Amino acid sequence: MEEAKVAIVGLGTVGTGVARLLLEQPARLARHAGRRLCLARVVVAHPEKPRALTLPPRVLTTDLEAVARDPEIVAVAHLVGGLEPARSIMLRLLESGKDVVTANKALLAEHGPEIFDRARALGRSVAFEASVAGGIPIIANISQCLSANRIVSLHAILNGTSNFILTHMEEHGAGYAEALAEAQRLGYAEADPRLDVDGTDTAQKLAILAHLAFGARVSWHEIPRQGIDTIEAADLRYARELGYRIKLLAIAELVNEGLELHVSPTLVRCGTPLAEVRGAYNAISVVGDAVGRVFFHGLGAGQMPTASAVVADLIDTVVGRAAITFRTLELWSQREALVTPREHANTKGRFYLRFTVEDRPGVMAELTGVLGREGVSIASVIQHEPPEEAVQPGCVPLVIVTHQTTEGASQRALEQIERLSCVRPNSVRMRIRQ
Amino acid sequence: MEEAKVAIVGLGTVGTGVARLLLEQPARLARHAGRRLCLARVVVAHPEKPRALTLPPRVLTTDLEAVARDPEIVAVAHLVGGLEPARSIMLRLLESGKDVVTANKALLAEHGPEIFDRARALGRSVAFEASVAGGIPIIANISQCLSANRIVSLHAILNGTSNFILTHMEEHGAGYAEALAEAQRLGYAEADPRLDVDGTDTAQKLAILAHLAFGARVSWHEIPRQGIDTIEAADLRYARELGYRIKLLAIAELVNEGLELHVSPTLVRCGTPLAEVRGAYNAISVVGDAVGRVFFHGLGAGQMPTASAVVADLIDTVVGRAAITFRTLELWSQREALVTPREHANTKGRFYLRFTVEDRPGVMAELTGVLGREGVSIASVIQHEPPEEAVQPGCVPLVIVTHQTTEGASQRALEQIERLSCVRPNSVRMRIRQ
Repeated sequence: MEEAKVAIVGLGTVGTGVARLLLEQPARLARHAGRRLCLARVVVAHPEKPRALTLPPRVLTTDLEAVARDPEIVAVAHLVGGLEPARSIMLRLLESGKDVVTANKALLAEHGPEIFDRARALGRSVAFEASVAGGIPIIANISQCLSANRIVSLHAILNGTSNFILTHMEEHGAGYAEALAEAQRLGYAEADPRLDVDGTDTAQKLAILAHLAFGARVSWHEIPRQGIDTIEAADLRYARELGYRIKLLAIAELVNEGLELHVSPTLVRCGTPLAEVRGAYNAISVVGDAVGRVFFHGLGAGQMPTASAVVADLIDTVVGRAAITFRTLELWSQREALVTPREHANTKGRFYLRFTVEDRPGVMAELTGVLGREGVSIASVIQHEPPEEAVQPGCVPLVIVTHQTTEGASQRALEQIERLSCVRPNSVRMRIRQ
Repeated sequence: MEEAKVAIVGLGTVGTGVARLLLEQPARLARHAGRRLCLARVVVAHPEKPRALTLPPRVLTTDLEAVARDPEIVAVAHLVGGLEPARSIMLRLLESGKDVVTANKALLAEHGPEIFDRARALGRSVAFEASVAGGIPIIANISQCLSANRIVSLHAILNGTSNFILTHMEEHGAGYAEALAEAQRLGYAEADPRLDVDGTDTAQKLAILAHLAFGARVSWHEIPRQGIDTIEAADLRYARELGYRIKLLAIAELVNEGLELHVSPTLVRCGTPLAEVRGAYNAISVVGDAVGRVFFHGLGAGQMPTASAVVADLIDTVVGRAAITFRTLELWSQREALVTPREHANTKGRFYLRFTVEDRPGVMAELTGVLGREGVSIASVIQHEPPEEAVQPGCVPLVIVTHQTTEGASQRALEQIERLSCVRPNSVRMRIRQ
């Protein structure tokens, strides 16, 4: 049986998982690849660090050139996080003639055009299934399996940390800080969770999916995004009372030939598939004009789910499928965008608004007056008896659900309401999924 | 831009959908294929039949040889149902040098080894995404995207007709016959629905999936199967009372290095993803040892969802990915099976048993006596007051839920109970998913 030499750069959590599959499951991988995959080199920055697995002798190295200059190594799993030296390593591997597999979504979201152009010019391929939604093979499904379709919409939960926090808050009535601490304790959240909870991670993944699914050329910086860090336990209770759960949704949807694109905590109706995605799971609901709605659900992160995606890409690369896909799809090429994003302020939707207001007559009239002037129509209001432990003395929470309006109008109304003397700071505004 | 000539054999529902995509969406398909797909020929048996779409001049023909002998046609969508002449057409296309895409699961389930061996010998490929679960790309996901995994289990709803009928019975309290009539009225069931409702269609699809996911070499005839045609509205009510819905499940699961494989109406706990699959939808829940559980949900049949799968395969074929996949996977090769099916009688599980019994003292003792002698332990019993309209005068329904036992013991107990004089015919036995 033929042999294909592969290498790994970066032996963190995912790199270790990939090495484990390569070393411990050679027969299984050979069956799917039609050849043996031989792990020839693993490049690390700190060789002295204790490792969870034992590599064969002479495999571990600190020298990227040991990979770059070995003509027998055909494919490399690039599993280095961050932007630098990840970018330089990626370019060096491509220039030395390697096909590359990566899980680094931040790198692709930031430097995708440069990396893909370079790979194309050099006749190499870059595969990146693991960069979005971990173990769910959404990249292959959108770019290959659904290729007969015009994708019409994509609604997704792409950040397991945020979904874990929201699920924990809902199930345990916990506050945001408590749920975050639990996520960190269980290893679902980093010590610095900002990029996960503020929507950055989700926006980076959405930029990649929007490129594949819609032919949009959007930088993740341009995607309007809102995180989950301002959500309180009360919001989950109110949402539940209204028949919804709160999810951090990535949304890309064709409307009037333009693309609506945003990341926002959203009220999703209980019983619908996305509402039932619990804990650290991810899910993607895609609508194509031929296929209808297809729904994918699985683990969006973690060592072995992500390694599963990386190794599938390595197999695709050594058998030659990745090269064909990369060439035919012209990923991130200079080719004209097929669709341009719509102005976010014009995006239609219903909204959930929560205010902390003084508990006195006339307040409701003031708030609803502002909404009326902005043309925002009210669908329902929740104002309970003052809670036993009032958040602020003399104040009560007030929840307003709007009829269909726009991002712009609801945002303008919110800003004006927050300037009213009867309203305290830290209001919450979330979209409601139709 | 390069051009690739393709043909269609069979212009039924799916063939018409495929022709529509090829004729109406050339730019979209060219973007994904890196070349224009030109529909050169459509072969039909009855050219005089009125058609839902207008083909370009000289495309329609009754002569398969017009395709077979045209060296410019590289890929053919084989969309002829049944076994013959479908088999002969398939072999002729392969022998004339065409790569073939098919949606005919019965043909593959029956003649897969012959067809795949022939294709291999001739250096051709056969792609068959559309043969299982319509628009859900489960073939590509299992054979490519999850290739790093040992698949541990697969639970699936693969027959939209049966799922529509069960959903309609549950939601409307309808009987089986009434629900079947409604499915026929809406086009979800054929005039002769036998192969759909008796589990044959599901077993054929499961045989294909078991081959891909587990390397099992199983003929669909060998798969123990039970249909939904004996289920009554009362069963759905009892299931609901117990916290379950009834689904026709295809199950393949590794147990002690053997493969449990069967098709059975099964009580699935409400709230789990498979229980929430409604109407004509299909779903597949796959567990891999690296990726964990991945869940797919979408339309399992219908013109455009199935055409979506066929056209994705055509694109895969003309770009060369299908050839690589077909070659490396050695589908239905003579290679030794990786796993063998376990004896069905030894399959463990909990069971739902419903009997129609005489409404007199001592009956319960007789039934439970039989169960006790077979070592079947009772978890719960439902016997309500005699229903207002008794099914049979002087009789009442009795539902028994067992603890964990085996297929064999529960079946033997059922047979003995049915021979008791106090028990009427047409008992029901269904599995309960843990």
